[in-house]
Amino acid sequence: MEVAEVAAEMAATTLGNPEGRVLRRITKIKKILEADVGSWAGRRVLVGGWVKTGREQGKGSFAFLEVNDGSCLANLQVICEASTYPLAELVPTGTSVLVEGELKPPPEGVKQRIELKVDKVLEVGPVGEKYPLPKTRLTLENLRDFMHLRARTNTISAVARIRDELAHATHAFFRQNGFRYIHTPIITTSDCEGAGEMFQATVLFSQAEKLAKEIKENPLPTESDVEAAKLVVKEKGEIVAQLKSTKASKPEITAAVSELNKAKETASRLEERSKLTPGIPVKPDGGFSFDSDFFKKPAFLTVSGQLQVETYACAVGSVYTFGPTFRAENSHTSRHLAEFWMVEPEMAFATLEDDMDYAEEYVKFMCQWLLDNSREDMEFMVKNYDKTAIERLKLVASSPFARVSYTEAVEILMGVTDKKFENKVEWGIDLASEHERYLTEVIFKKPVIVYNYPKGIKAFYMRLNDDQKTVAAMDVLVPKVGELVGGSQREERLDILKQRILDADLPLEIYEWYLDLRRYGTVKHSGFGLGFERMILFATGLDNIRDVIPFPRYPGRADL
Amino acid sequence: MEVAEVAAEMAATTLGNPEGRVLRRITKIKKILEADVGSWAGRRVLVGGWVKTGREQGKGSFAFLEVNDGSCLANLQVICEASTYPLAELVPTGTSVLVEGELKPPPEGVKQRIELKVDKVLEVGPVGEKYPLPKTRLTLENLRDFMHLRARTNTISAVARIRDELAHATHAFFRQNGFRYIHTPIITTSDCEGAGEMFQATVLFSQAEKLAKEIKENPLPTESDVEAAKLVVKEKGEIVAQLKSTKASKPEITAAVSELNKAKETASRLEERSKLTPGIPVKPDGGFSFDSDFFKKPAFLTVSGQLQVETYACAVGSVYTFGPTFRAENSHTSRHLAEFWMVEPEMAFATLEDDMDYAEEYVKFMCQWLLDNSREDMEFMVKNYDKTAIERLKLVASSPFARVSYTEAVEILMGVTDKKFENKVEWGIDLASEHERYLTEVIFKKPVIVYNYPKGIKAFYMRLNDDQKTVAAMDVLVPKVGELVGGSQREERLDILKQRILDADLPLEIYEWYLDLRRYGTVKHSGFGLGFERMILFATGLDNIRDVIPFPRYPGRADL
Repeated sequence: MEVAEVAAEMAATTLGNPEGRVLRRITKIKKILEADVGSWAGRRVLVGGWVKTGREQGKGSFAFLEVNDGSCLANLQVICEASTYPLAELVPTGTSVLVEGELKPPPEGVKQRIELKVDKVLEVGPVGEKYPLPKTRLTLENLRDFMHLRARTNTISAVARIRDELAHATHAFFRQNGFRYIHTPIITTSDCEGAGEMFQATVLFSQAEKLAKEIKENPLPTESDVEAAKLVVKEKGEIVAQLKSTKASKPEITAAVSELNKAKETASRLEERSKLTPGIPVKPDGGFSFDSDFFKKPAFLTVSGQLQVETYACAVGSVYTFGPTFRAENSHTSRHLAEFWMVEPEMAFATLEDDMDYAEEYVKFMCQWLLDNSREDMEFMVKNYDKTAIERLKLVASSPFARVSYTEAVEILMGVTDKKFENKVEWGIDLASEHERYLTEVIFKKPVIVYNYPKGIKAFYMRLNDDQKTVAAMDVLVPKVGELVGGSQREERLDILKQRILDADLPLEIYEWYLDLRRYGTVKHSGFGLGFERMILFATGLDNIRDVIPFPRYPGRADL
Repeated sequence: MEVAEVAAEMAATTLGNPEGRVLRRITKIKKILEADVGSWAGRRVLVGGWVKTGREQGKGSFAFLEVNDGSCLANLQVICEASTYPLAELVPTGTSVLVEGELKPPPEGVKQRIELKVDKVLEVGPVGEKYPLPKTRLTLENLRDFMHLRARTNTISAVARIRDELAHATHAFFRQNGFRYIHTPIITTSDCEGAGEMFQATVLFSQAEKLAKEIKENPLPTESDVEAAKLVVKEKGEIVAQLKSTKASKPEITAAVSELNKAKETASRLEERSKLTPGIPVKPDGGFSFDSDFFKKPAFLTVSGQLQVETYACAVGSVYTFGPTFRAENSHTSRHLAEFWMVEPEMAFATLEDDMDYAEEYVKFMCQWLLDNSREDMEFMVKNYDKTAIERLKLVASSPFARVSYTEAVEILMGVTDKKFENKVEWGIDLASEHERYLTEVIFKKPVIVYNYPKGIKAFYMRLNDDQKTVAAMDVLVPKVGELVGGSQREERLDILKQRILDADLPLEIYEWYLDLRRYGTVKHSGFGLGFERMILFATGLDNIRDVIPFPRYPGRADL
C-alpha cells in the first residue's frame, strides 16, 4: 500500500475525512505504538516529530533515532541509513524530522514493539546551537526558566495531555447531565466576595503615556499663549464692531466676522488644551478618576463567575462555567497562582444535597476518565513522582465520599491525640489546611465532604440554615491537596439575603441586580467551584501548581 | 409508577445515575416535549421552571400556566386547580414553580402536544414587584439594560443554547482530529502583533489607594521627625562610648548598647517611611514605574494565544486554544467587543493547505452540528431574525468553499461594474469588509478562502512565499459576517523570521523565545483563529455581537 492509502485507512478511525495535505498523511506515533504489531509490520508511514536521543551505529552506516511527536509519552525507534541523509545532522537531541519508511517488528529480544525503517528523510529542522535543555533531567523548578521549551520534556507534555483529558472529561460530564456551558466575563465591575485582591484592567497608563509623548512633541500652550489668543479675539472683535459702526460694506464685515470666528476657535482650542494634565487623572478629593478609563469606572479581573452565572441558572436551569479566574495575592506557595482555571456549575432547583452529589460524581467521573484515557501518562507519574497516584484515582472513583458536618469535623479533630496541630481547632474558626488533610488522609482515608459551616466564616450568599448559626456550604477535601471543591446552596430568600449583605458590611446598591434574581421568581439553587489546577495536582501527584498550567503567573513572573 | 421511578427511567438515557435529590427527580421539559405522547401520557413527573404566561380560567377554578425551564425553547402547558394553590400567586409572568403531576394528552384539536395536570405545588417563587421585562417584546438593544434578566427571554436563552452547542462542537471536532486543548495565558508580557490597544492588568491603583489611606491614618514622618530620631541615636551612642571609656559594668554597657540599637532601628524605620511617595510610582525619567506592580513589569490582557500556543504545537503536535481575548479599542460597532472568545488551532508539520482544509472542515462541522442539535432554536432564529439562517448552515455544511488567491480576488473585484465600492481596491491594500462580503455573498454565494496576501499588510510571523511579495496567509470569508477565520503558515526559517521582525520595527529581544522555536528543531507549522462570537452571528443571523455573548464588554459598559 502507498503511504496515503495506509494513512487513510488508519486515519479513518479517528480523523474523519482523511484526504488532504501533509498533516493528514502523517501517522501519529500513538497510533503506531498502540496498534497490533502483526497487522502493522510492513506498512509504509509518514512520521513527524523531534529526536529525543540519536546515535550513529555501525561505523556511521546507520543511526538510531528515538522520535517523539507529543501524541504519547513513548518514542518511536527510527532507523536511518547513511544513504538517506547526513546522519550527523539527524542525531542531535531536539532535531525535528519528517520521515517516510516501513514499519518493522524489532529484532528478537529487543524491547521496542515496532520500529520504523526510513528510506526518505523529507524535512529536517536542525538544532543550530547547543540545545538549552540538557539530557540529564532538570528539576521542574529549573525548567520554569525555559517556559517556551519545557513542553518538550516528558513531564510537562504528559501534564499537558492529562490536563486536556480532564478538560474533556469536564465538558463530557456536564453535557451528559444536561448542563449548558456559559461564558462568564473576565472583566467585571462587581466583586464576588468583597474580599480578595483583584487585578484592575485599565487603559489609563497607556492613555497617559500617549498624552505625555504627544505633549513632548507638541508642548502645551502656556497661560500667556492663551492670553495672547484671547487678545487676538478682542482685537478682531473690535475690528468687527468698528466696521459695523462705520457701516462698512457687507463683504468687508463678513470677512472680519470670519476672522473673528477663527480667532475664537483658536483661543478656545488653546484654552482647552492648556487644561490637559499629564499623568493619571485625579478627582477633586485626591482619589484617582476612572471617568476616562475604558469602562468609565474601575474594572477588575474576575475572581469567580458564580454571581454572574446565577443569572443563567435562574433562566436556563443547569449551567456551568469553565474559564480563567484571578487573584492578585502576594502568594508564593506551591498551591496558589495569580491566574488559574475554575469550573463552576450552578443548578436551579438544587439543594445542598444535590450540590454534594454532583460534586462527588464529577470528581469521580474525572478520576475514572483518567484511568480510561491517560494510562500511559499516569504510569509515568507513578514511576517518577507519586507511587500512589493511580491507586488514588481508583480509590476516589470507586468509594463513596465520607460526609460530615463541620460540627462533627471539629469534634473529631478536637479528639485527635496522636498529632499536634499548629492551628487551633475550635467551633467557629475555619479549618486550616492541616486539619483538612488530616481528615481526608488520616481519619477517613478517602475524600470527605464537610458541610454546614458557621455563617461567620462563609460568604454572604450562602443559605442560612434553620439553626441560624450555620450556612448550607460544603467543601470537598481530598488526599494530597486538601480542599478541591467549595460550594453552597445559595440564599434564595430576599430579606435574609439583604440582611446578610448588610451584615457583611457590603453596599446593597451594587448587589441590586443579584437581589432581583430573588425578587422575580426566586428558586432554590446551588453550585460549587473546582480549582482545575488543584484537580491536576491531585491526579498527577505533582507538588507545585506552577507545573500543571502551561504558563504560570505568580508574583514577579509572567513569562511569555 | 412513582415520580422517582419515572424520572429514573427517563434520566437513564442522559443523566447516568438517577438516584439522588430534588434536581435528579426533576424532568426537563425538553425530554417531555421530545417524547412520544403515547408512551408518556399518564406518567407522573416533577417539573421546575418559570411561568412565561399564566391565566385563570373557569371562574378561577383552575389556571393554565406556560412554564419554561430553559432546557428548550418551548413551554410546557401546566394546569393547576384552585384546590392545589392560590392561583393568583401562580399566574404572574416570571413566577417560579416546582410542581408535580400527571402528563396528559391535550384535548383534541389543541396545538400543545402534551400537558401537565398538577396535583402538588411544591415550591413557588413569587414575583414580588412588577416584573421588569414586559410581555411585549423589548428590542434586543433595550434588553441590554437588563443584563441579569435577559437570559429569561426566548432570544437570549436560545442564543445561550446555540453558543453551548458550538462550544461542544469545537471540542468534539478538535478531539476527533487528535488535537490537544491548551490553556494559553490571559495575562501576558508579550504582545502578539505589536499592534492593537491592550488592557493593562495592574495592582498599582489599589496599592496607591491603600498607601494613601494608611498615610491618612498614620501620617508620614517629617524631615524633623527623622532628624530627631537620628539625634537620639547620636545621644545613645555617646552614652555607650562614655560608659565604655569609664569602664562601666558589663550589664550597664549591654543595656546601653541595646538602647542604642533600638534607637537605630527606630530611626531607620522612620527614614524608610519618610521616603514613601503616595500615588503611582514614577521613574527618574518621568515615566511610570512598574517595579512594584504585581509582575514587576507592565502586563497586559492577551489579544491572541497564538505565539504562546506555538510552543506547544512545536512539542505536542496538534493543539488548540479556546478562551477569552481582549482589545481595548474604542470601537462602537456591532461587530466588535472588548472581550471575546477565540478558537486558535496550531498544527506542527502543517502547510497553508492543511490550514485551509482544517478551517473549512471545522466551520462545516459546526454548521452540521447545529443542524443536528439545535433545530428548534435555529427555527426560532429563522422565524424571528433571519429567514435564511438554516439554509445558510446547510449550504456551508455541504458545499466546498471557494479558494482564490488575494491577487485573483483583487482582479475579480477590480472587474466589478455593477457596484461602486466605498473603499479602493488595489493590489497591496487590505480588502475592506464590503469587498469581503461582496466576494462571498455576490460573486461566489458561499464561503471563500482568500490566500497569499501581500506581506506588507500581514503580521511578521506569516511565512514568506517564494515570490518574496506575498505571505502564506488565508482568511475565510462567509456570507453575513465577512471575515470569520484568519490564519497562516508560520515562518519557520530563523533568518527570514528575524528579518521580518526587524522590518516590522519590532524589538528582537522580546521575541528571543519565539526565535528559539526556530533555532531548535524548527518545523513547518500553521494555525488559524476563529472569532467565536462571529461564528454565532453567522449561525443565528443576529445583527449585534453584544447579543451573542452573555455579558458583553464595550466602551463604557461592563455590566455585572
